[in-house]
Amino acid sequence: MSLFTKVINGELPSYKIAENDTFYAFLDIFPLREGHVLVVPKQEVDKIWDASAEVLSAWLNFAQPIAKAIEKAFPECNRCGMSVIGIEVPHAHMHLIPISTAEDLNFTNPKLKLTEEAFKAIQAKIIAHL
Amino acid sequence: MSLFTKVINGELPSYKIAENDTFYAFLDIFPLREGHVLVVPKQEVDKIWDASAEVLSAWLNFAQPIAKAIEKAFPECNRCGMSVIGIEVPHAHMHLIPISTAEDLNFTNPKLKLTEEAFKAIQAKIIAHL
Repeated sequence: MSLFTKVINGELPSYKIAENDTFYAFLDIFPLREGHVLVVPKQEVDKIWDASAEVLSAWLNFAQPIAKAIEKAFPECNRCGMSVIGIEVPHAHMHLIPISTAEDLNFTNPKLKLTEEAFKAIQAKIIAHL
Repeated sequence: MSLFTKVINGELPSYKIAENDTFYAFLDIFPLREGHVLVVPKQEVDKIWDASAEVLSAWLNFAQPIAKAIEKAFPECNRCGMSVIGIEVPHAHMHLIPISTAEDLNFTNPKLKLTEEAFKAIQAKIIAHL
């Protein structure tokens, strides 16, 4: 069982942003930027390109209102960028990150260290715009 | 009219990989890695999150066989990564890039300079696996 399946099942805590039958979205606890959200299919699959046609066709539509909420919650950024890399955790996950330059989406940058209060404030700010 | 619309209309040349009524896929001529493909909706929209629900729901399904062809064409790579940044050209475009580490998807890296022959060989290699 992947780390993300444990998050989805509630066996590990998370700062949840949204959920439906197919996907679960929550704050990345090793964020590149404030407002960094992961969108994960509940069906466990390593590579995004091995996900079912149904999951693939629903993924961006599920992510859309979350990405727009991120853009509203962090208006100083140019837009919400998106990336799927998938090397660290073998459960496909889409990163949604408010960016102003390509450097903001550079996964070799050091991750931010945020307090629980900071994560909760970011979670509330994004949910308020959903 | 965006640079990519000119490519789609054939006003600018491209190394085409695949096309349907909604999307056009071609080699990025400023590639981060060999096998770097752009998937662009024919309907011109700046931010991916402003694309229609129909375009969003078809995008990953259109990209899937191309990404799998990239994985087969570049088996030395771990998988096909994906990114939407969108700051340089105001016409939403999805990057598909064969990667082994997150560094391979770092858009602040210098772009490769390839000859026309090299681009044609990469195009043929990907299409052969489609």
